[in-house]
Amino acid sequence: MGVIGAGVMGTDHAVILDRFVSGAVVSRVSDVDAGRAAGVAARLSGARVSPDALGLIGDPDVDVVVIASSDATHAEFAIAAVRAGKPVLCEKPLAPTLALAAGVARTVEREMPGLLSLGFMRRFDPVHVELKAALAAGACGTPLLVHCVSRGVSAGPGTTSESSITGSAVHEFDTVPWLLGAPVVEVAWHAPRCSGEVDGMQDPQVILLRTADGVLTTVEVFLNARYGYDIRCEVVGERGVLSTSGPAHVVRDASGMRSSGYPADWRPRFADAYRLELQAWVDAVTTGAPTPLATSRDGLIAAAVSDAVITSMSTGGRWTAVDVGTA
Amino acid sequence: MGVIGAGVMGTDHAVILDRFVSGAVVSRVSDVDAGRAAGVAARLSGARVSPDALGLIGDPDVDVVVIASSDATHAEFAIAAVRAGKPVLCEKPLAPTLALAAGVARTVEREMPGLLSLGFMRRFDPVHVELKAALAAGACGTPLLVHCVSRGVSAGPGTTSESSITGSAVHEFDTVPWLLGAPVVEVAWHAPRCSGEVDGMQDPQVILLRTADGVLTTVEVFLNARYGYDIRCEVVGERGVLSTSGPAHVVRDASGMRSSGYPADWRPRFADAYRLELQAWVDAVTTGAPTPLATSRDGLIAAAVSDAVITSMSTGGRWTAVDVGTA
Amino acid sequence: MGVIGAGVMGTDHAVILDRFVSGAVVSRVSDVDAGRAAGVAARLSGARVSPDALGLIGDPDVDVVVIASSDATHAEFAIAAVRAGKPVLCEKPLAPTLALAAGVARTVEREMPGLLSLGFMRRFDPVHVELKAALAAGACGTPLLVHCVSRGVSAGPGTTSESSITGSAVHEFDTVPWLLGAPVVEVAWHAPRCSGEVDGMQDPQVILLRTADGVLTTVEVFLNARYGYDIRCEVVGERGVLSTSGPAHVVRDASGMRSSGYPADWRPRFADAYRLELQAWVDAVTTGAPTPLATSRDGLIAAAVSDAVITSMSTGGRWTAVDVGTA
Amino acid sequence: MGVIGAGVMGTDHAVILDRFVSGAVVSRVSDVDAGRAAGVAARLSGARVSPDALGLIGDPDVDVVVIASSDATHAEFAIAAVRAGKPVLCEKPLAPTLALAAGVARTVEREMPGLLSLGFMRRFDPVHVELKAALAAGACGTPLLVHCVSRGVSAGPGTTSESSITGSAVHEFDTVPWLLGAPVVEVAWHAPRCSGEVDGMQDPQVILLRTADGVLTTVEVFLNARYGYDIRCEVVGERGVLSTSGPAHVVRDASGMRSSGYPADWRPRFADAYRLELQAWVDAVTTGAPTPLATSRDGLIAAAVSDAVITSMSTGGRWTAVDVGTA
Repeated sequence: MGVIGAGVMGTDHAVILDRFVSGAVVSRVSDVDAGRAAGVAARLSGARVSPDALGLIGDPDVDVVVIASSDATHAEFAIAAVRAGKPVLCEKPLAPTLALAAGVARTVEREMPGLLSLGFMRRFDPVHVELKAALAAGACGTPLLVHCVSRGVSAGPGTTSESSITGSAVHEFDTVPWLLGAPVVEVAWHAPRCSGEVDGMQDPQVILLRTADGVLTTVEVFLNARYGYDIRCEVVGERGVLSTSGPAHVVRDASGMRSSGYPADWRPRFADAYRLELQAWVDAVTTGAPTPLATSRDGLIAAAVSDAVITSMSTGGRWTAVDVGTA
Repeated sequence: MGVIGAGVMGTDHAVILDRFVSGAVVSRVSDVDAGRAAGVAARLSGARVSPDALGLIGDPDVDVVVIASSDATHAEFAIAAVRAGKPVLCEKPLAPTLALAAGVARTVEREMPGLLSLGFMRRFDPVHVELKAALAAGACGTPLLVHCVSRGVSAGPGTTSESSITGSAVHEFDTVPWLLGAPVVEVAWHAPRCSGEVDGMQDPQVILLRTADGVLTTVEVFLNARYGYDIRCEVVGERGVLSTSGPAHVVRDASGMRSSGYPADWRPRFADAYRLELQAWVDAVTTGAPTPLATSRDGLIAAAVSDAVITSMSTGGRWTAVDVGTA
Repeated sequence: MGVIGAGVMGTDHAVILDRFVSGAVVSRVSDVDAGRAAGVAARLSGARVSPDALGLIGDPDVDVVVIASSDATHAEFAIAAVRAGKPVLCEKPLAPTLALAAGVARTVEREMPGLLSLGFMRRFDPVHVELKAALAAGACGTPLLVHCVSRGVSAGPGTTSESSITGSAVHEFDTVPWLLGAPVVEVAWHAPRCSGEVDGMQDPQVILLRTADGVLTTVEVFLNARYGYDIRCEVVGERGVLSTSGPAHVVRDASGMRSSGYPADWRPRFADAYRLELQAWVDAVTTGAPTPLATSRDGLIAAAVSDAVITSMSTGGRWTAVDVGTA
Repeated sequence: MGVIGAGVMGTDHAVILDRFVSGAVVSRVSDVDAGRAAGVAARLSGARVSPDALGLIGDPDVDVVVIASSDATHAEFAIAAVRAGKPVLCEKPLAPTLALAAGVARTVEREMPGLLSLGFMRRFDPVHVELKAALAAGACGTPLLVHCVSRGVSAGPGTTSESSITGSAVHEFDTVPWLLGAPVVEVAWHAPRCSGEVDGMQDPQVILLRTADGVLTTVEVFLNARYGYDIRCEVVGERGVLSTSGPAHVVRDASGMRSSGYPADWRPRFADAYRLELQAWVDAVTTGAPTPLATSRDGLIAAAVSDAVITSMSTGGRWTAVDVGTA
């Protein structure tokens, strides 16, 4: 198994695979910064550094590939791995633009269908899995409305109004149709008062999604919410409401307050989701079963929703149809 | 004190005034159904039935008037009471249409400013009062977004898509500017998939409000939510989030579940709010202080927001400006 | 209505009666500190100061009496009021010792049964009332165990290990049999590690109660718990568990935490209970109905439990029988 | 790796090791019921059945041993594995009686110190780990009191009052000293009213523990609580209180209730704990590091506490000293 990219996500993936995933052996790590790759390899049992991503992909000691390098490189490496006939798990997004994502998806589906899996890890988050099961079991009746909240402590450097959509809200664009079993067909974007604590970007944002079943979803994305990393999802149905609760924690009574902590970012919040996703992927690769992860087609669809939201953003918040194209 | 209307609200007001409000004596009750009025009077200590509303207003044993008759009659009785120089507490709405509400508000403000109070009882709900205080104290920083949810078990007979707005969502139209200290300037209405359990009306509905300070508010109104009466409000600010929690209750662990009950309707949920509102009004009337309740002007403003939402509803969900007119 | 005692409780009672209780007029206030009495009287509409408690009791303008003076004076004033034929609401405890409480109870029951009500206000706390109703409705099946927690921010000056029992835990000694419908027959007292933040008293304390139905109750009393005023009650039954949740409040997400506030002391926590208790008492006195409050007999029984706990405290924590005597 | 015992726990361990633990390969399974062993082996990748436990221990394809057979067999197999020089993870209890447990612990510590790990999995439950860390960080100040609750749906067949102690409460006997860093020195046992739904055993039971630091712990054990599997721990300190909250879940609003589910038994509740415990053990065995799990000495100490509780049970609930002996 080779891991491309030794940044935050690549390191996490490599360490989780090495320490917590049964049946996985990380043999190669590569990064544009060779020192960084060496640092990660040193933390693993028996991994070596590959000089570059394409070399890693071609290495006979690498059977499967994880891509966690910078967003702009995903497409090239994904296609290379697929053409080498090696199963690949690519971090989202498939590509920074809809056109590029469509190209990758088209190539993969034509040449090697099913070889590429996409890292929409929420599909493996236990609470989201339980939500989907409860929904399927009719626990709230037919769904009518969904309310999603996606808040973080502070946006990374260089985040823009657009990259809030393609980098963060894109998770909801995958989660909502996955939960409902219906694609997003129309979107609208709205801007509340902008936080005075951020510069050069609109934050928070409110996005409306309409799925093919008529369900309306409200998505709040607020990357500089300061107080903590907080992902919420509530499904309102004909006969009840289902909502996710926070992860288990210790409750503290002190100083006049009952309080419990929020995670600082997505890594503790979704640690189980990442581990279970990687385990499910390794299991499927090992047994030759179809991937239970999101596919390149799912990535293309989410990219098309992002694209429509950005169009709505630039046209005064108009309802905008989602166009996946003919891919 | 005279109470006009012996339906659900009129009966509740009369009983609360008689049994739980210090300084209030209900001496007269009237209703279009004299038998119903007699039934209420019999539950009170020393009240008699007036033959009709105008007779009650003119009765020398009546110093102040509570109007809880049907919505269409509010305007006439309110003006009559004000012209008789008697302080009046009128249930919302001031009038069923914006034009009529504007007429009442204009008359009251011109002839007897301050004599009319309007029953937006949430302003006295302890949790909402605490929320407003926390907001004012900066507990979440500058507000950016508000999320309101207004759910009931089932809409009353005859409820329409429009009367969901004028009769229910109007509470949010008063609460949000009261919380934020900024008027609603623009609204948009959206329809999710409609519950198959209702006929002839859109339910749920999603309304967006933009206040003069740029804050965006999402309002979900779902009158046939089945599971219970559930009013929620969450204010998202630059440095944190404030939200209302449910009223205190007994928690039950049984049959594999931890559960707690929802109230069946607004009466148990807002019992304290009604009592505190009536007490505050009686205290102000007794001491001659200005009313701490909503005024006819507040009622007019809320009616103007309702009117704009209904316009948006009939024009495909377009953003629609709120026009209070020159009243 | 006359109020004896113008300290914290007396002032609260007088103000609640004057401002929030229907049918009550406070005409006289007395206190050992006449200036303090005058201060309270000035906050009320139309009350005057009585020179002393016995004068207040004898005043023809006083029909009913509230006793909220220091604990040691309750017995004398209660007997005087009862002998004057005036309904009296006496703050707990009836008397500082079991022998004295027995004397008062005996006198009252012999001479004027039912004229004395005792201020165990938890019987009117909405959450406790709901708990008792759920228990009676079989919501948890037959009760087997009760866990009570009684925590405060800091004990008042002069509090001792013994007065923690007679002044605080005595509320649980009344609440538990009221909930279960069975008297406490046996008690045992245990001392955990003592908080280093207090001097000269054991705090916290753990008390076991066994009621006649075999139910075992654990009571934690911790008067210097620092973090807030926190009263909890959990009933474990054959088929489920019922527990009280905190009062409604605003929830705050900030600084990495989700938090909600505790009240600082019993007054905000039990504001509703005090109001409803006073209203129920005034209503019963007005209509001549039997008091729905705790009686002198209930006070005697609670005093007997306190006495047994203090005996257990002084004998190494032995199980000690409760002896109400022949009163 | 060989797994002895193919019952519920043995199967779970084998499957978790095979599917979710990095670095573990289960090569052999044994059980008194060979068919049952074969059934488990068939679910694993590459495991075979050993004819019996001692054969499995001696098999050169087995480097380390997991013992999950019936309680009475733990001692013999543990000693055999240790004498074979193979690291062994033994499910609790070490032995059904204190004398036997002392014998095992003595043998292990004398011959092969550190080779035996004991399955007190709560030490790896993320919420308990977080609780211990918060305690160590001073989040509630010096601990004074602990309240533990251990409830299950229904006791297994053959459970007795005594085996409730040695099989269930023994977890608290390990957890409390692990949290506090102080051994239990004295215990007392009390019986509430017994549930009418069970026969031939006392359930619930209440146990008091006093640790060497003076902290008093109340433990409620209720194996037939019906409503769900529910483990709670609350530490009351000089400056605040820390308590565990339930695991994350989906919240449902329906039928007048807000509700969330309890697990049916310990397996879903402690799934993470078991996985993390097994991973930590495999990691330590692989690297030769000292075991981070409970040791045979810990097992002996917990057995001594159980023994003292049973003595208290048979002597009317007297405080009974814990005697670990000279092992």
